[in-house]
Formats: sequence, structure tokens, C-alpha cells
Amino acid sequence: MEIDESLEKAAKLTDINAVVTVNERAEAEANAVARRGLTPIPIVIKDIIYTKGLRTTMGSRVFRDYVPREDAAVVARLRRAGFVIIGKSNAHEFASGATTTSSVFGPTRNPLDKDRIAGGSSGGSAAAVAAGIVEVAIGTDTAGSVRIPASLCGVFGFRPTSGSTPKAGVFPLAPTFDEVGVIASNLDVLRRALQAIMVRRRKARPIRGQPRLAVPRGLLVADRDVSRAFWDLAARLNAAEVDLPIARARGRESFTVIRLSEASSVHLPFRDRWQEYFPDVRRLLERGLEFKATDYATALEVMRRVKDEFTSVMRKFDAMILPSTAIPAPRIDEVLGKEDGPVRDLLTGNSWLAPLVGAPAISVPMFKVNGLPVGLQLIGRPGEDLELLELAERILSL
Amino acid sequence: MEIDESLEKAAKLTDINAVVTVNERAEAEANAVARRGLTPIPIVIKDIIYTKGLRTTMGSRVFRDYVPREDAAVVARLRRAGFVIIGKSNAHEFASGATTTSSVFGPTRNPLDKDRIAGGSSGGSAAAVAAGIVEVAIGTDTAGSVRIPASLCGVFGFRPTSGSTPKAGVFPLAPTFDEVGVIASNLDVLRRALQAIMVRRRKARPIRGQPRLAVPRGLLVADRDVSRAFWDLAARLNAAEVDLPIARARGRESFTVIRLSEASSVHLPFRDRWQEYFPDVRRLLERGLEFKATDYATALEVMRRVKDEFTSVMRKFDAMILPSTAIPAPRIDEVLGKEDGPVRDLLTGNSWLAPLVGAPAISVPMFKVNGLPVGLQLIGRPGEDLELLELAERILSL
Repeated sequence: MEIDESLEKAAKLTDINAVVTVNERAEAEANAVARRGLTPIPIVIKDIIYTKGLRTTMGSRVFRDYVPREDAAVVARLRRAGFVIIGKSNAHEFASGATTTSSVFGPTRNPLDKDRIAGGSSGGSAAAVAAGIVEVAIGTDTAGSVRIPASLCGVFGFRPTSGSTPKAGVFPLAPTFDEVGVIASNLDVLRRALQAIMVRRRKARPIRGQPRLAVPRGLLVADRDVSRAFWDLAARLNAAEVDLPIARARGRESFTVIRLSEASSVHLPFRDRWQEYFPDVRRLLERGLEFKATDYATALEVMRRVKDEFTSVMRKFDAMILPSTAIPAPRIDEVLGKEDGPVRDLLTGNSWLAPLVGAPAISVPMFKVNGLPVGLQLIGRPGEDLELLELAERILSL
Repeated sequence: MEIDESLEKAAKLTDINAVVTVNERAEAEANAVARRGLTPIPIVIKDIIYTKGLRTTMGSRVFRDYVPREDAAVVARLRRAGFVIIGKSNAHEFASGATTTSSVFGPTRNPLDKDRIAGGSSGGSAAAVAAGIVEVAIGTDTAGSVRIPASLCGVFGFRPTSGSTPKAGVFPLAPTFDEVGVIASNLDVLRRALQAIMVRRRKARPIRGQPRLAVPRGLLVADRDVSRAFWDLAARLNAAEVDLPIARARGRESFTVIRLSEASSVHLPFRDRWQEYFPDVRRLLERGLEFKATDYATALEVMRRVKDEFTSVMRKFDAMILPSTAIPAPRIDEVLGKEDGPVRDLLTGNSWLAPLVGAPAISVPMFKVNGLPVGLQLIGRPGEDLELLELAERILSL
């Protein structure tokens, strides 16, 4: 995709509110990339990741005028690989929500139905890809923030193995789970961006024979229509059911304790500004203050046990599969003011397992429900990010 | 050392209260080792590490009759390597104290002066070595529990890199910091036991030239006499002073929040039995209940920053040095009932840095103060346990 075309579309397709700051230097930067003998690739960067000289708001009124002096480490790596920043993409405030409706720039709209949300927190990144402004965008994923908007916008969304991307210049949400991820319209450009941002890479081990897929029993959240579509697909893919009893009994609760406690800890130094945060974000931070240290320590211990359980089960499988979201994109008017209500639980209900065990996960656009896309989520083995990408490609071709 | 001699001494030297349960099968087990072509090496195992068929009390009235059905993973590894369990060594209850005075078996006495403590929590292990019952003993070290009694008893005590020994069958204290360690009268047998219990080993990288040693400025706790002796030795060893500002400002507090929160979390399921615990142990567990999850999350974040700071400084040095303890062994009558008072802060004041950064550390018997030993602590780079042992050997020969 040409840089000009991307910039034109960013200037034209403003109604979806995906790109909130345009990089005026993009053409000059593209020329510089071309002089290095590379083909410039347009990309947008989630607005909680620092870009040198380019406004970065965290989606928050508190940082509405913040202009970083340095690039985040992942941005510097992308530039070196020939990516050109078209602009910054809208995000749920502090990446702390699944809807991208609580942002200083207002809600991002779903390009497939503009009365619906794009999902979040990397909603602007997914919407920009779905609208064709760019083929690839950078997001972050703590509790599903890359996979959820990819699911609702009908594009690919990849969360790498925990710890595989550098976090300098990425505003933290919950450090135990924070990862930088990639949203894209095809797997080739996704792989390219992923290889640019990951610090540790190795050659993919080839996957032979029929992919061995498993559905974790009792861990699946889905409404009736998503459930039907998912189980039909699982049957076609010959997926087995497996049990992760500790994850099933205590996984989600433990994930929540860690995620909320860490977010509140990150934001405690700004506590005098919390009244300027969006109410749903503030309420989550206030919940995080209520946990005791023993709750947190117990949750970390459960996390270790769930990791062991996951590792053990994954000896026999190439990936676990789940719907990426329990529902397709809800209407914006049903969500506004209720971002931390039931819709949040439905959107994040299938996305906590991968960060809890540190595994890579991808949302693949595989089925539609009432005309709206829902992603199929594949969760791989930690460290086997490229294998997971190959597996996704194989499954798409089945 | 012969098994017979070791068993005889264990039977005879009961007044120091170092070995609290003797293994009646030791001779038969030694014969079996000999039949495998190995020379049996007598060893004692701290009484919070499970030994199959041999009483394991955690030093607690609550577990006074507990007989494990399985060996801890480290015990199984030691047996395979030819070590023969002579018996179980006394420990501070649940490894939660630095004095080994709060134990269901009563206090362990220091073989060098029986009116004084042996230190803790692996006090029985250090006393058994110092008394000559065995040449080598297994302990655990969360906040210094191997290095402190080694320091007070004038023997070697080694805490390996965090995560390098298996923890199955070791009663947890604070999982982030818990490590299994070795106490010994010489470095050869120490190395042998260490290589038996460590899961990941590699060849030591040779250290060339003069050892490069550093004293972390403002982090040293010592009484007047220990301070003088330590600084004299540091000068002879040409040690430089370095600064770890985050560790200095927030390290010990963060260590305490993590250690106490985790211990309380581990013991919450037994809360109806806390009235049977020793008062000093119970008071620490009650303190751990008071922290908030955000305190814990913040402490973990400080830990990550201290690790980075330590890694950065250690690019230029082979080891940091500190006195292992701020004081030599205090008198038992000064400690009883005040185990969690100022004496605790003095004994653990120099031992929290290594577990906070996950680094290996050794206490080397290097100087005496008023006729009583105090160890020199060397803290190495994570993963370079064998290099640290070589360094200790080099420094002893200087």
C-alpha cells in the first residue's frame, strides 16, 4: 500500500474516529525509507505508545497535549524496518476498557456498521485496518485489547508471548500482562510487523499433519449465536475438549485481582487527577484499591499453577481455540456509560487465559454472526509465536 | 567423612540441638550407595524439606507428627548423587525467623559458644556442620536463612540463583524469594551438593585477573566492630564503592512487603491454627495481612527496577560484598521472646539484596569479632553460581 493512499484515506475517513493524530512528516519519512532501499509500509500506532514529536494522549484528558521526546522502543524498531507512521490510533483511556468509547477524542466507530463499537482498547488500530486506511497497525493487549477489536472489526489481531517485546515508552496498564501486538488485514504484513517488534525470534518449527486443536472445557463464554457458530467450526476442525480445572475454577478471578491491583498501583502517583479520568476507568482503579496483598500473592500463585496446567495439556496440542469475543460488536448507544458493565465481561470473557499463562494468541476472522464478524482465537505455546502464525495460515486454508 | 562417625557424633552431640530426628536407615542406605560404586556422603536436611518416611515438622507444633510419603525433589536428587541422610536439622518455625529459637524442639545452640544462638532459620544445619556432625547440610534461604547461620557458626553458606533448584516438597515461606541452599565446612563438598540440587548447570566462565569487588554504598548494616573488621577487609581486597539508589531508598521495604504478604498468603488456609504458632511467627503473619494489593504490586515494580540497577552495576564487577550479618551471634537469653525485634533487623539487614535481585550469594568465614565469627558475603551475577564459588576460593587464597 502506498503512503499517499494511506494518508488520503486517513484524511477522508474521519467519521469512524480511528486515526486521531496524523503524522505531517509521513511523506518525508517515507522518502527517507525509500532512499535506504526499502519499500515504506504505512502503519498506525496506538495512542498509548510514545512517538517522538507526535502527540500521544493515552486517550486521556490528563495527557491531551503530551508530545513525547522519544520514540517507544517498538516504534524505533518499526521505523528501522521501513514502517512509516501515518498517525496515532484512538484508544480506550489508558487502555483500560474493551470498547474505545471512553477517549478524549470520543468513541471510535466500527467501519462495518458505524452505529457499533470497534472494540478496544486498541479500537482505533482495528478500525483503521478494517477501513483500509492501513493494512497494519500496532496495539497493546493486556486483557484482550488487540484480539477483541480485531474480532469485532473482522481483521487479524496477534498478541505475542509475554515478555517478547520491549516495553520502554509504552504506558503501562498491568505490567504482568502488558504486551505490544499487531492488527492487520493479512498475515504477511502481520508477520513483518511482528518480526520487527519482537526482541527474541527464532525460526519456526514446522507443524506437520493435521493441526491438533483443543477447546478448554467450561472456559468458553459466548452468546447463543456465537456459541453455535463456534462449535460448528470446532467440529469441522476436529477439536478435542480438554480440562484445565484450576484455570476453570480460579483463573479469571485471579487474572482480575492481578490486573486491577497493578493498574491501581501504576496510577496511584496520579491520584489527585483521577476525577478527570472517565468514570468507568476510575471505577476500575477504585476496585483495584480494595484488594489485599494476600489476595494478590494468592492470585500470583494460582497463575503459576495455571501455567503448569496449561503447559502440561499443550504437550498434546498445537493450539487451544475459543471465540475471540462472546458477542459481535454491540451498538454504541448500548455501551456508553456502561463500559465496565456486563458488556465488558462478554468482550473479555475469552481473552484472559493467554495473558495469564503468557502464551501467544491470534484472533482470526473466521465466522460471522448476523452479518457481523467474530474472530476465532488460537492460543499457542509460549515462545512459539511464528508456529502459531503458520497454524493460523493452515487453518484458513482448510 | 564416614557415615558411622557422623551417626556417632549426631548421637553424642545432642546438647546443641542441631539434629532433631535421626535417620535409623542411614547405614543401610549408605551400603546401597556403596553398592552403586559411589562413596556415601553424610548430610543433614533442614526440617522444612520433606523426607520420605522421616518426620518433618517445619519446626512447628502443628506438624510435630508429620511423616512425608515422598522425598522433596532436592532430596531425591541428593540421594541419586550418593548423599546419605543422617537426619533432620532444627529450623525456626516455618523458616520464619533468623534465630532458630522458636521451634517445637527448642532452640539450637551455637557449637562455638553454647549460650549463643546458631542463627536461622537453617540453624540446625549450620550448627551440625560447625560441630562436625556432618561436613555438609541442606538449608533454605528466603531472607538470609542459609547465609545468616553460616555467618554466626563460622562455616560456608550458599544461596543459589533464584529458580535454580526444584521446590516440590519444600514448605514455602515466600515463593518469590525461596531457594534451597547448602551449608558446608569446605567448598569442595559444598560444590558437590550444589551441583546435585541445581537443575540448570553450566560450565563456569573463568574469572581472570584481580577479582573486581564492590560495596553497595549506604546499604550496609553493621555494629561498630563488624563495621571495622569488614572495611579493613574491603580495603585489603581493593573493593570499590558503588551506588544502587533505588535499592538504597526502597529495596528493603519492598522486600519486606513481598516477603510478609506471600507468607501470610501461604498460611491463610491454616488460619484457625495460628494460635498454636510461636508468637513471633504469628506476629509476622499478622503484619502481612495489613498490606494492600497496590503495596505488593508497587513492591514488585520496585523489585524489577532494583534488578535492572543491579544488572547494570554488575557489568563492571565480579561480586558485591557485605558482611553476612551486622553482628556476631547474640546470646540466647537476649533473643528469646524478642525474635522479631531489633536483633532480627540486624541479622537480616544485609541479606535481602540477593533474593530481591535473584542473585546467588555465599557467606564465607573470613573474620572474627571478639572471638566470634562473622561471614563475608559475596553476591554474584544471576546464573553464575559456579563462578561465584570460584571467586570465593580465589579470595580465600589471597
